[in-house]
Order: sequence, then C-alpha cells, then structure tokens
Amino acid sequence: MQDPRALVAEKPLTEAQWLVRLIFLESIAGVPGMVAGMLRHLSSLRRMKRDNGWIETLLEESYNERMHLLTFMRMAQPGWFMKTMIILSQGVFFNALFLTYLISPKITHRFVGYLEEEAVHTYTRLLGEIERGDLPKWSDPNFPVPQIAIEYWRLPEGKRTMKDLIMYIRADEAVHRGVNHTLSGLKLDDPNPFVSEFKAAGKRPNPVLKPTGYEREEVIG
Amino acid sequence: MQDPRALVAEKPLTEAQWLVRLIFLESIAGVPGMVAGMLRHLSSLRRMKRDNGWIETLLEESYNERMHLLTFMRMAQPGWFMKTMIILSQGVFFNALFLTYLISPKITHRFVGYLEEEAVHTYTRLLGEIERGDLPKWSDPNFPVPQIAIEYWRLPEGKRTMKDLIMYIRADEAVHRGVNHTLSGLKLDDPNPFVSEFKAAGKRPNPVLKPTGYEREEVIG
Ligand SMILES: [Fe+2]
Ligand SMILES: [Fe+2]
Ligand SMILES: [Fe+2]
Ligand SMILES: [Fe+2]
Repeated sequence: MQDPRALVAEKPLTEAQWLVRLIFLESIAGVPGMVAGMLRHLSSLRRMKRDNGWIETLLEESYNERMHLLTFMRMAQPGWFMKTMIILSQGVFFNALFLTYLISPKITHRFVGYLEEEAVHTYTRLLGEIERGDLPKWSDPNFPVPQIAIEYWRLPEGKRTMKDLIMYIRADEAVHRGVNHTLSGLKLDDPNPFVSEFKAAGKRPNPVLKPTGYEREEVIG
Repeated sequence: MQDPRALVAEKPLTEAQWLVRLIFLESIAGVPGMVAGMLRHLSSLRRMKRDNGWIETLLEESYNERMHLLTFMRMAQPGWFMKTMIILSQGVFFNALFLTYLISPKITHRFVGYLEEEAVHTYTRLLGEIERGDLPKWSDPNFPVPQIAIEYWRLPEGKRTMKDLIMYIRADEAVHRGVNHTLSGLKLDDPNPFVSEFKAAGKRPNPVLKPTGYEREEVIG
C-alpha cells in the first residue's frame, strides 16, 4: 500500500488523471464557504445581530474555490460518469455540512481546515511532478494556462506557466487552511480578525503563515 | 375596509408600530437573494459552468437587506413574541423559496420583484407620514439616525434625517425591484446586464428607472 503522506507517488498520475482528481476536489471545495456564509447570514437576520465580518470571508472562499474549478474545467471535458459523481457528491456534502454547521460551526471549521491542509499537500505533490518533468505537457513552459485564470489572479506576463498557476492555487488553499483553523478557535460573535482592524495596529494576521491557525488570544484584543 | 392601495392610511401607525412592521419585513427580505445566490453557486459547481455575474448581485441584494434590518434594529428592542415570529417566518420563507427557486427561478424573481414593489410602496407611505408630521420623532430633523446607516450609505452631513435615510432605503428597494423583474425575463445563462459590459457602450441599464424591469432584448446583445 502507498504511504498516504508520500510526496512522491509510487505511480505518478497523467495530466488527465490529475484533472479528474482536481475537478472533483474543487467541485466539493466550493460548498463549505457558501454553507457557512449562508447560515451566518440567516442567523444574523434571525437574531437581528451583526455578523462581524465573517460572511464576506466565507463567501469569498467559496468564490475562490469555484474559480479553481472553472480554471481546471478549461483543460478537461468530463464525461457522464464524472458529472454524475459530482452531482451526487454535492448532494451528500452540502447536506452533511449544513447539518454539522448547525450543530457545531467550531468542529466544521476545524474539519475544513484539515481538508484545506490536504489540498495544500495535493498541490505540493503536483508541483513536485511538474518540476521533475513527470507531466510533459504541464512541465512545458509554453503550456497555455486558461484565460480565466490569467484574469482572475492577474497573472503577470512571464508568470503564466502551469507551475505558476498551481503555486497561486496552493497559496489560496493555504489561506483557507489558516482562516478556517483560526475561525474554529473563535467565539461565534468574535470579529473576523482577517477583515477587522487588528488589535496591534499594522500587524494584520496572515493566514498563510499559520498552517494551524492563530490562537484566539493572538487575534482577539 | 381599508383600500390596500391607499397612500394615506386611515389610521397612521406610530413610530413603534412602524418599527415592528419594518423589522419584520426586512428580516424576511434578506432571504431570497441569499437563496438564489447559493443555488446558482451550487449549480455552477455542479454543471461546471460559469455563472455570468448573477451571484454577486444576488448576494449583494441580501447584504443590503440585512443592513436595512440592522439599521432599524438600532431603533427598537423587539420582544420575545416578535423574535419567535421572525424565527418561524424565516423557516417557512427560506424553505418555500428554496423549493420555488429550484422549480422556477423565473417565477421566483418575478415574485420577488412584486415584493420589492410592495416595499417601495410601504416606504413611500412612510415618507408621506414623515412629511406630514404624523410621526413627531421621525419628522424632527434632529432625530439621530443610527451610526451603522451613516457608515453604510455614507450619508453626507446635512443628509442624515430620518426622511433622508428612508429615501436611501426606498431607492435600494427600487433597485431590487428593477433587477428582479429584469432577471425574471432572462435565460438562466444570460449575462447579468447590471454587471456585464452593456451592449450599447456607455448606456448601462439602471434598474431604478424601470419599475417593471427591462425586456430581454433591451439588455442582452
Ligand atoms: Fe481549491
Ligand atoms: Fe481550498
Ligand atoms: Fe429592504
Ligand atoms: Fe428589497
């Protein structure tokens, strides 16, 4: 059996196999931020209390994941089997998250933090394969990355290889990881430290730098 | 019986009665945009297709309604009966809209367009009562409007009376009305004309000016 922590897979995937995997993952990844943002919105309406800035970060996360998906979609043509799997998984995952978020936002954010950790790991492995030349098309510096990605991340000229794109995406996942682990440690009506004025002026928390998130005392004044 | 179209109510409400009514309405008004935005997000993930700009307008609408609610909340202290009614109504309204939006986005946007028409009408009536001095507190130009409203609408100095605030809110409702009636007439993968490049350059559609919305031919090139 393959060691799941292995950064080098025993049998590398092809580009087409990678795309199946990434499209499937990203079609699921866009769900939690939307569920959490929606439930906090409804809760703010119902309790008639401010949300303190969480909703915008959560919805932004779900939008960002959707852009990951649409980027990879530009490189693949999923068949009916995959489409069916994606629809079924969305149904299961949406309902499961809806329930767990109602029961415990804390546990759900922690869980999402771990999923994002897995995503960082997956993209790190992909970068390794690209660097070693295991994926001839994607290792080619002239491989054209999709226009939608160039616009969304504003990729500068000379930074438009597949390797560059995957590094941008991995950085996004590292943000999600740090944000969700941090939110998991906060009280539900604490301000979102990633949009609020930070207690120590000029020292905004940076979720990328904190793989396991910030402790509450570090970000709530 | 009172003519429901009457701009002058037979028995004007007091400020406290108005607040009950407005808070109840606004706690419901924040639901449809979020439901529609979420369902289009999930649909984009599932079908792996672009959304064409609808989601941001729909989520923005729901945020705007939540700001209406939080503004009025600063002036009132709802009791347990009202809080219970709001929770129950949200449960019913959320589930009803979720189902109708799955069945027919077209009909749902049309329905929301009519609700927004009612909201415009309600705020017009309130403005009349303020202007006639039926509501002594709110007719007072020194009545302090909540800080959250000053910040959200960036109310300029000298434009911070209750009448000014209600005019801002009514304008929002007129936007929602025009937007929802227009969206109702579009195909589901048409671009959102209120964010996309408009076909006749320099002539962006303005939903406030179109109480019944734009026809599809006017906004889709
Ligand atoms: Fe992602
Ligand atoms: Fe992610
Ligand atoms: Fe409203
Ligand atoms: Fe409205």
